[in-house]
Amino acid sequence: MSTSTHAALVESYLEMWNEADTAARRRVIESVMTPDASYVDPMAEVSGTDAIGELISAVQGQFPGHRFELHTPPDAHHDSVRFRWALVDDGGAPVAIGLDVAERAADGRMRSVTGFLDPVA
Amino acid sequence: MSTSTHAALVESYLEMWNEADTAARRRVIESVMTPDASYVDPMAEVSGTDAIGELISAVQGQFPGHRFELHTPPDAHHDSVRFRWALVDDGGAPVAIGLDVAERAADGRMRSVTGFLDPVA
Repeated sequence: MSTSTHAALVESYLEMWNEADTAARRRVIESVMTPDASYVDPMAEVSGTDAIGELISAVQGQFPGHRFELHTPPDAHHDSVRFRWALVDDGGAPVAIGLDVAERAADGRMRSVTGFLDPVA
Repeated sequence: MSTSTHAALVESYLEMWNEADTAARRRVIESVMTPDASYVDPMAEVSGTDAIGELISAVQGQFPGHRFELHTPPDAHHDSVRFRWALVDDGGAPVAIGLDVAERAADGRMRSVTGFLDPVA
């Protein structure tokens, strides 16, 4: 899988976290994640389209006016990609930074994401 | 899974990479990795006890007198752990640094490891 394809997938993944409209977000989730994809971070462990959508909705509710942005460029090999994201407030200041590691399925979507939190400098 | 258990497993994982004796290394692999465990990094993609042992032997052959050391403490949640290692020469200078992300199986051993390389400062 090429790095550029990984980069496009990561871009869509962040769009998925930022999409506020439930129906539109579901379409993005379905394009980015396999139907049984797993997502785990220090605070959450879910799998499947519905549960991922509910998690994103809950996180958006906790951080109104915030957005997820790519913090460091994706670094990919084989079917794996890591990237650092930042959750920024409406002034662009990061309130959280994390590292996500995603594994791709044969169909090109993510089948698992494992997230870790990094210190905000 | 407690962080201390993750830390002990990571310690054994690095011991696995450093063990030069083939039979002893196989015993460490069997204690650290499930029989069908996968290992992937930018240069290698293998699975199973035999292939992991052969990979480690090949890496040791490429870097005689070097050792793998823990570079940053393990950071774990759920069944996932990330940690940064350094490959150091016989003077203790790092020649490579990487981030490994391991997933544990229900039996407590690693069922997959995904590695990435970081710049050596």
